[in-house]
Amino acid sequence: MEGQKLLINGKRLQDSLERFADFGRTKNNGVTRLSLSEEDRQARDYFYDCCEELGMEVTVDDLGNMYATLPGQEAKPPIAIGSHLDTVKKGGRFDGVLGVAAGLEVVRTLVENNVKPAVPITVINFTNEEGARFEPSMMASGILSGKFEKDTMLKKTDTAGITFQEALNKIEYAGLKESRLKEAAAFLELHIEQGPVLERENLSIGIVECVVGMVCYEIEVTGESDHAGTTPMDMRKDALFASHNIIAEIRTRLGALADDLVYTIGRMNISPNIHTVIPNKVVFTLEARHKEPAVIREVENIIGSLTEVSALEGCAMKAEKQWDRTTVWFDEAILAVMENAVKQLGYSYRKMASGAGHDAQFIASYIPTAMLFVPSINGKSHCEAELTLWEDCERGVNLLLETVLELLKK
Amino acid sequence: MEGQKLLINGKRLQDSLERFADFGRTKNNGVTRLSLSEEDRQARDYFYDCCEELGMEVTVDDLGNMYATLPGQEAKPPIAIGSHLDTVKKGGRFDGVLGVAAGLEVVRTLVENNVKPAVPITVINFTNEEGARFEPSMMASGILSGKFEKDTMLKKTDTAGITFQEALNKIEYAGLKESRLKEAAAFLELHIEQGPVLERENLSIGIVECVVGMVCYEIEVTGESDHAGTTPMDMRKDALFASHNIIAEIRTRLGALADDLVYTIGRMNISPNIHTVIPNKVVFTLEARHKEPAVIREVENIIGSLTEVSALEGCAMKAEKQWDRTTVWFDEAILAVMENAVKQLGYSYRKMASGAGHDAQFIASYIPTAMLFVPSINGKSHCEAELTLWEDCERGVNLLLETVLELLKK
Repeated sequence: MEGQKLLINGKRLQDSLERFADFGRTKNNGVTRLSLSEEDRQARDYFYDCCEELGMEVTVDDLGNMYATLPGQEAKPPIAIGSHLDTVKKGGRFDGVLGVAAGLEVVRTLVENNVKPAVPITVINFTNEEGARFEPSMMASGILSGKFEKDTMLKKTDTAGITFQEALNKIEYAGLKESRLKEAAAFLELHIEQGPVLERENLSIGIVECVVGMVCYEIEVTGESDHAGTTPMDMRKDALFASHNIIAEIRTRLGALADDLVYTIGRMNISPNIHTVIPNKVVFTLEARHKEPAVIREVENIIGSLTEVSALEGCAMKAEKQWDRTTVWFDEAILAVMENAVKQLGYSYRKMASGAGHDAQFIASYIPTAMLFVPSINGKSHCEAELTLWEDCERGVNLLLETVLELLKK
Repeated sequence: MEGQKLLINGKRLQDSLERFADFGRTKNNGVTRLSLSEEDRQARDYFYDCCEELGMEVTVDDLGNMYATLPGQEAKPPIAIGSHLDTVKKGGRFDGVLGVAAGLEVVRTLVENNVKPAVPITVINFTNEEGARFEPSMMASGILSGKFEKDTMLKKTDTAGITFQEALNKIEYAGLKESRLKEAAAFLELHIEQGPVLERENLSIGIVECVVGMVCYEIEVTGESDHAGTTPMDMRKDALFASHNIIAEIRTRLGALADDLVYTIGRMNISPNIHTVIPNKVVFTLEARHKEPAVIREVENIIGSLTEVSALEGCAMKAEKQWDRTTVWFDEAILAVMENAVKQLGYSYRKMASGAGHDAQFIASYIPTAMLFVPSINGKSHCEAELTLWEDCERGVNLLLETVLELLKK
């Protein structure tokens, strides 16, 4: 190995990803593989078989998380690599599965090159990252990290009324609590970006420094329902027009805060929602994400001051925080290793923040963790059109391998 | 009668209105008397009995419209007075019934003063003005004036699947087609304003020159649904923000058109309406009302030019006309009589336009027609809080009587 870089097999990686996509492949070449479904069981079984074939030991914990471990020269805490095999309904062929297939490909490369790592390598499939069948998302990693309570989560039901526990039993992936991931030298997650930044900047790799913090408010504006034909404009208490003024204020003030702040009004309902009646109520959500707590605080200050907007047009407004989460920063030492490795491989890259949530953000609470992104074409994910080029997948896994090799030296 | 004005009996009018309100009175002193319901039948029966007691002949046409006629000295076309006895669900005690009770009170005053009118006086109760049980509103007057087709209308169903014809038969108010209102010297409708203008200007009477024309568009804005966390602001095609820009343009440009233009965005639905997803579609209605066709045309020109708004933010927009109606101008000669009469009575008044629709606007197509308004407290109607002061009701009916007396002289 001296003098020549170890590289993964891009064709084998592609075959592996296509094989996984067969479990729930849709007509439009997407994937529906809801957590703990029959398709999920098939994908898990396939992953299980692949790992055993490589001489890995596979264990399953009480949440259905799978751990496939290649023994190391020493029985020390492993280097863990992973993501999730479940998808949303009509999702894509890359979200989640790429991070699992990447771990498999790293181990395959080590094994075929007779590299026995200094410490074990564990490839993980986390249960129910998407939360598409059982809310919330990142359920199992959330329990592992103490963020969610196991008993509450096991009782979560899908739309058919089936509980998480029942579904887990049905596909026979309920294992032992003592198998849970307790410690590791590192946790590495390769994921598609799910946004358009890398593609726009024509870059191959994103080194993810953090998962950004966010805050979500619900804003309710109350006016009066009057007859659309008989009420002069200056005598109205139009909740929609008042909301329009408030949104103008939000856009002006949040727009001036920080370039990389993102904010979204995703849900809006108006009452009574009849074309001949002036709206008396508008309820909308405002969520904002940024890595700096100071920026999020400023967003909250602005929301707090909106009730003073002079343009309320006789309407009342209240804003209520739905939830927030703080920015999760990844391990600086691992990030430094990744950056060094990406330079050695000669791939174009940037450091970036993740706007979306990932299992890694929970695991980071007790294991040194970092993430890598590869480009999403048109930024699409959670849809059948989700696409990452094979060569980008290959580069991502090569960087993952190089990172593992560097970490093994330590 | 020489030298002393004939005046109605305000107390009797009030008693009459309260008696009608008993048919469907709600806990909060409103009225639920849906068209052709049992409550409607009771109100009709009561009206029938009151009229017969006065020596009027009552006929019913094939649409359930009731005509109570006090004979005149000559068997010429009558002066007709009327409105409707049906209400919306949880409506008020004045909308519609005031115009019928007013006709009754006018006849009562004539009879008790032994005034035999030169021509007959016919008091009309139009069926299903509200359209609250069977759409559309103003159904029967619409058929009378040839605006709606009878066969189609009779098949209209309520939420329980009962047809208009079945309901009409059930309450035994299906009469003969030859009883329909064919000609009249005049049709007069007294109605509550259903808006706040008279109260704001501290006036007792509105002389209604027209029912304003209107136009209603549906506007659809299409963008792209992307992840709220991973998509930078400058790469979004946010249909809600694009709609926000369009609404700003609408408000700026329509706001500058004419003081008495009213326009309303009453219905708005956004997709997918999830707080973490950038909206890819917003559909909203824009309706505008004004008496001058030139102003409505200008509104349509503005809507037509909205697709050129530079602020569409990468989204597409289309606007589709849902319907329009032209302004209905009332009879100038009757309006002149009304204005002369209101001056003689010494009531404060203004000429105004009706922003809401009324049976009179259809009847105006074949009979000289005009309307009078009395103030609605806080502009409220179609709700239990609907209120018109008794003294305002009385003034309205006195003006109606004076108008009838003047018209009888001609």
